[in-house]
Amino acid sequence: MNEKDISPKTNKNTPPPAQKKRYYKKKSPAENSQDSSAPDITKKGRKPKETKHTPVKIIPLGGLNEIGKNMTVFECSNDMFILDCGLAFPDADMPGVDIVIPDFTYVERNADKIRGIVITHGHEDHIGGLAYLLKKINVPVYATRLTIGLIEGKLSEQGLLGKVSLNVVEPKKTIRMGCMAVEFIKVNHSIPDSVGMAIHTPAGVIVHTGDFKVDYSPIDGKIIDLARFGELGNKGVLALMADSTNAERPGYTHSERTVGESFDRLFKKGEGKRIIIATFSSNIHRVQQIINCAQRYGRKVAIFGRSMVNVINTAIELGYLKVPEGILIDIEMMSNYNNEQIVLITTGSQGEPMSALTRMAMNDHRKVVITPMDFIIISATPIPGNEKFVTRVVNELMKSGAEVVYEAMYEVHVSGHACQEELKLMLALTKPKFFIPVHGEYKHLKKHGDLALQMGIPENNVIIAEIGNVIETDGLSMKIVSQVPSGRILVDGLGVGDVGSIVLRDRKHLAQDGLIIIVIGIERSTNEVVAGPDIISRGFVYVRESEELIIQAKNLLSTTLAHCSYSELREWNTLKGKMRDALSDYIYQKTKRSPMILPIIMET
Amino acid sequence: MNEKDISPKTNKNTPPPAQKKRYYKKKSPAENSQDSSAPDITKKGRKPKETKHTPVKIIPLGGLNEIGKNMTVFECSNDMFILDCGLAFPDADMPGVDIVIPDFTYVERNADKIRGIVITHGHEDHIGGLAYLLKKINVPVYATRLTIGLIEGKLSEQGLLGKVSLNVVEPKKTIRMGCMAVEFIKVNHSIPDSVGMAIHTPAGVIVHTGDFKVDYSPIDGKIIDLARFGELGNKGVLALMADSTNAERPGYTHSERTVGESFDRLFKKGEGKRIIIATFSSNIHRVQQIINCAQRYGRKVAIFGRSMVNVINTAIELGYLKVPEGILIDIEMMSNYNNEQIVLITTGSQGEPMSALTRMAMNDHRKVVITPMDFIIISATPIPGNEKFVTRVVNELMKSGAEVVYEAMYEVHVSGHACQEELKLMLALTKPKFFIPVHGEYKHLKKHGDLALQMGIPENNVIIAEIGNVIETDGLSMKIVSQVPSGRILVDGLGVGDVGSIVLRDRKHLAQDGLIIIVIGIERSTNEVVAGPDIISRGFVYVRESEELIIQAKNLLSTTLAHCSYSELREWNTLKGKMRDALSDYIYQKTKRSPMILPIIMET
Repeated sequence: MNEKDISPKTNKNTPPPAQKKRYYKKKSPAENSQDSSAPDITKKGRKPKETKHTPVKIIPLGGLNEIGKNMTVFECSNDMFILDCGLAFPDADMPGVDIVIPDFTYVERNADKIRGIVITHGHEDHIGGLAYLLKKINVPVYATRLTIGLIEGKLSEQGLLGKVSLNVVEPKKTIRMGCMAVEFIKVNHSIPDSVGMAIHTPAGVIVHTGDFKVDYSPIDGKIIDLARFGELGNKGVLALMADSTNAERPGYTHSERTVGESFDRLFKKGEGKRIIIATFSSNIHRVQQIINCAQRYGRKVAIFGRSMVNVINTAIELGYLKVPEGILIDIEMMSNYNNEQIVLITTGSQGEPMSALTRMAMNDHRKVVITPMDFIIISATPIPGNEKFVTRVVNELMKSGAEVVYEAMYEVHVSGHACQEELKLMLALTKPKFFIPVHGEYKHLKKHGDLALQMGIPENNVIIAEIGNVIETDGLSMKIVSQVPSGRILVDGLGVGDVGSIVLRDRKHLAQDGLIIIVIGIERSTNEVVAGPDIISRGFVYVRESEELIIQAKNLLSTTLAHCSYSELREWNTLKGKMRDALSDYIYQKTKRSPMILPIIMET
Repeated sequence: MNEKDISPKTNKNTPPPAQKKRYYKKKSPAENSQDSSAPDITKKGRKPKETKHTPVKIIPLGGLNEIGKNMTVFECSNDMFILDCGLAFPDADMPGVDIVIPDFTYVERNADKIRGIVITHGHEDHIGGLAYLLKKINVPVYATRLTIGLIEGKLSEQGLLGKVSLNVVEPKKTIRMGCMAVEFIKVNHSIPDSVGMAIHTPAGVIVHTGDFKVDYSPIDGKIIDLARFGELGNKGVLALMADSTNAERPGYTHSERTVGESFDRLFKKGEGKRIIIATFSSNIHRVQQIINCAQRYGRKVAIFGRSMVNVINTAIELGYLKVPEGILIDIEMMSNYNNEQIVLITTGSQGEPMSALTRMAMNDHRKVVITPMDFIIISATPIPGNEKFVTRVVNELMKSGAEVVYEAMYEVHVSGHACQEELKLMLALTKPKFFIPVHGEYKHLKKHGDLALQMGIPENNVIIAEIGNVIETDGLSMKIVSQVPSGRILVDGLGVGDVGSIVLRDRKHLAQDGLIIIVIGIERSTNEVVAGPDIISRGFVYVRESEELIIQAKNLLSTTLAHCSYSELREWNTLKGKMRDALSDYIYQKTKRSPMILPIIMET
């Protein structure tokens, strides 16, 4: 597109006229979301002239140098919009944390400029932060039908449903966001209804792929709209932002259909047995293939796991899952069928401790007992960090005598992300002037950047950014010009952000070596020790078998107290420090451990 | 061998005469260890007749249904010996634990029967528990030269050197262990001087492979002694116990030499840059290949990391590493050379937080600063559980501009364990009557068992055991007959076994949600509350930002106290329970968290 279509007289310092008469109306976003009649602002297709234009800022707030919590702000003059708002799962160094969301400081500060949120697809790492964001800024959300359906589920859990404007947008449609416009473009991924975005700005077109792969035989028949990416490329793409998840992997990602072929072989192999298949609840095409297979082999299907039930219900309701009459049965009805007549579809493909499959494996599921008459397929690959969980589940299932298929050799899983050849295809189609690899750790971004260099993009035009970077472009150049607040906000239970680095440090310290509490009672008037010193420990040693150590520690504290001067007994901070140091040295010398030591002085 | 060579008139109930006149002498194990002149008890090779013999017990105490802490007891009449005594590394659910060793209860109880310990090779999962065992039972240790060298290092750290009899045994030699005899057989693995064992017992020959692979072009030229395994097979092997680590992987494991070829290509690629290679310190052949490559490319070699320095020194001293004159340089001398003139060999291939490579990556190494002039090779595959550590190191190294080679595409690492085709080869050579897969989680053991079934071993003759199982054989049958104490002992600092399930449960609880301490002072004589209730928390919330919550919690506790009857104030356990329950409910309702709550009542 030619940015002049939107703001013909724009320059760097004056807001574009388009903004004043912008289509977007805060009160009726639904109108906007169905902007199919909007003029195709990309039609004319003149090459952008080599002149500076109203600068556009791209501000990633998540998803760079990390896996998850994808979120990007696009900004032009007085208009901003947000692309995706995901969560990340906590690392091992965040004990007790449930989820991690982006730092919203920058968007909160600019709440009045935010024209809306566009979402590429319904995975947690793209929608999981939305409820938290919408509590802070109530702006309309735009996404495809299934994605909106899944977002509704999320928001209703948080009591936000009905309070927020959710708008269904079909692929090929364009949403105006002030002086910018966002065009939805069909892509393939491991969840239906995924889109990439072409962001039409005064400075040029920025293509964001979202998560994508190229599947020439997708289950819903809807192949990624390569032609539109190519058309945009021919008209001139200022910048490409593309999914780097699989940038380390050579070749192509296989079609989802290959998994169906494996299922077919495995259903034959599992003849006479109950078949249990664990997969991601959001992989609706995978579920469709299981249901198709079940129908061919005359089996009924029962669904396990809350998220699996929720997603499947949404998908059926919205027509994304075609379920033949009478094939789904209630869990309670399973006992009416023999093993060879049923298939269970369940959550737990990552070995998540509370999932249905894990509970089955641990013989802790109310409805399902695993026996040698079970044929179990784990249709997923462990996400880094989950390998041990999955292995534990596989071991336990096998111990019950079940046959378990979990290797790649049967192709029971394919990735949802593009490998190197597909990434090159995207670069070749869009022919971007600038390239910003997104969605990945540094090594993924770097590899993806290297691919772009191989494809002829000049080194200076490949921008490997960090979250919080403000990447500015005027259509001619593109560079990181400044920084906005960014980072991670930890969610623990109902608390959002109340677990920070100090709390985490304490949790890790407590986990490593436990805790010793020293209790002393001091009579204020006389400065006399009237109680203690006593010692209480947790997570340090098994006290009954370490009596000697504890007694000696108490003696040491008594001696330390006895040697304290009158003034030291008045200066409680000094006194606490003295007790802590004495005990800490002693404990380390005896055990080579450093438990947290908490002296408590009680005044009476 | 024919068991009659040892105990011709043995039957199930009388101890074999061989035991009475056994070669083994407790006072001079060194003599024994060089038992090259011992008659080859396997020479006659008659097939065992189908008669019952003195039963032999095989008791795995580690390494089954787990990775690591390999240890097996062999027992016949009044004689016992131990094969390997390794450690395991703690899982994520053992916070603060340094290492895990087997439960030695059974061998301690039978200390007077233990004739010695044989060790297959010098990896931690085979020798890491030895120092702890030798502190409890002082018996001679038998191993090949390099393995003894590495054990010496371990024991000297624990102050045990000189107090224990360490005996070098060459492959093909046999050590008598009472009525049993152990023959060392050369195998290939990722550390030199690895052996399997043929255990000659009155009931028949039991072959234990140790960790092994088949390498037809090993760096030291010493190919696994396939002929001897075949010879034993032809004479009749009662049981095979074989390494299951790679039982899931089809095909063959590549030769260590392929890594050298990759190094050669990569040294060319890294021309002009400093080359840094991280690998396992014990992989001496890998180090040899790096040194050879360095010599060819005219580079000096500097060694980083304490364990790398220790192992390399031992290997040089014992002649396992051939280092051309003048090629090794001291770290302090590095500044005398340009980047293209040096290679650094370092620990940290698993991203271990304190390792040299990690410190370089985090810009925290005193001697090495990573720059774009570094070409870094991580010559290892992440062990399950370490993926995230390695990724973090790779990301940080790349951010410093270094080129980092870490994928399988360059073959910079090969496994030390046999894949399926090699496992089949071992089964084909030894033709065992019974098969016990060892070294692996259940899924590995099961896969390996399935391979044995495919090779024609009857299902009843494949024994998938658990640690603590007593597997008994009289030469005709083999079955699990009983159970001995077994399990895991946790080592934390100087403490061995003082961290148990209660301590771990507390540590995990503290890590999840932190801790709240309630402090109350009560005057005993009057049962009056004279101080508090006060609240102290750690790892729960950031207190300064949650003042309101803490104040309300205190008020709640004051109210609860005020409503306590006189008798409740006397019954401290009841009082504590009341306070804990009230606070716990309140906190959960407000935060959906369940911190550990510790009420402390101080009597004055």
